[in-house]
Amino acid sequence: MRLLEDRIRKDGKVLPGDILKIDSFLNHQIDVKLMDEIGKEFYELFKDTHPNKILTIESSGIAIASSASRFFGYIPVVFAKKTVAANMNKNTYEAKEHSYTRNIEYTVQVAKEYLNKNDEVLILDDFLANGEAMNSLIEICKQAGAHIVGCGSVVCKTYQPGEKRIADLGYQVEVLARVKSMTDDGQIEFE
Amino acid sequence: MRLLEDRIRKDGKVLPGDILKIDSFLNHQIDVKLMDEIGKEFYELFKDTHPNKILTIESSGIAIASSASRFFGYIPVVFAKKTVAANMNKNTYEAKEHSYTRNIEYTVQVAKEYLNKNDEVLILDDFLANGEAMNSLIEICKQAGAHIVGCGSVVCKTYQPGEKRIADLGYQVEVLARVKSMTDDGQIEFE
Repeated sequence: MRLLEDRIRKDGKVLPGDILKIDSFLNHQIDVKLMDEIGKEFYELFKDTHPNKILTIESSGIAIASSASRFFGYIPVVFAKKTVAANMNKNTYEAKEHSYTRNIEYTVQVAKEYLNKNDEVLILDDFLANGEAMNSLIEICKQAGAHIVGCGSVVCKTYQPGEKRIADLGYQVEVLARVKSMTDDGQIEFE
Repeated sequence: MRLLEDRIRKDGKVLPGDILKIDSFLNHQIDVKLMDEIGKEFYELFKDTHPNKILTIESSGIAIASSASRFFGYIPVVFAKKTVAANMNKNTYEAKEHSYTRNIEYTVQVAKEYLNKNDEVLILDDFLANGEAMNSLIEICKQAGAHIVGCGSVVCKTYQPGEKRIADLGYQVEVLARVKSMTDDGQIEFE
């Protein structure tokens, strides 16, 4: 997605530890117009799979999934939670996610009432690095008996295992900006 | 907002500890069409204040603020973060928020580069209970020298101090569904 690649080149920051920071338009400040372009692109890529629900994970996945929902005729968005909240129903599907960026392990949860075996689920997220977050969402769909129609990510780094890991599970994986290399002085190249 | 009140009456759950749970359309599963109606309502209430930015807090504020942004001509959304993340710039504004629901204290953060003295900020959030979250966002705006044009909340309980607390600070406060009472058997009354 050219528009997104141009934006990442312009506003993305490369930090020590091979971190690509796109806080200025997605992960902290949100450019909602760009989110709508991203949502439209995911619709074009997955429209033939006819999802009835979008599953994502807090926090940055929410704006992406909400924008995509509009193009799919306002199908519900469910966002998985990362912490045990006092007001959350204990009746949840759960999976583990190790975050390499933060070096901690999350318990990812979805309440059972919002995902079931009749669901045709499109999984969307912001980053696909090692595939930990995406894999936890897949695991939760399996527990629910829901059918996964596809997995979409806004960004991945092609030299990390996430994209292949998810594709090897047999799912259609679509990534809008595939980073081939990054240098410490901020040069970002795409496939 | 009648549509929202009807939806809360229909799908809201009253849990022990005076907790109103609206997970089925806002806090876990998101009804994006309803979010757009909410965004439109906030636009109608605040359009004369001419904000150039919307400030909210993760996670549930993101869908609300993103929907509102469209009606305001796609102004940027900034969502405050609740945890210290390894890939977050240390150059942040910070405020404390005590969550009564979870009984923990958060550090709420906004990177300095996304909020400054030229900003006309509309603050939006999902719940206004004791006003802790809203107050932390106000505190952050003050640190940035930004001008707050108003504060909007989707839901409040009128017998809790939040709405008055924020209004007493001198801000325009708008709440879309004002809960007057809730009973353990799930009856919810609005003002």
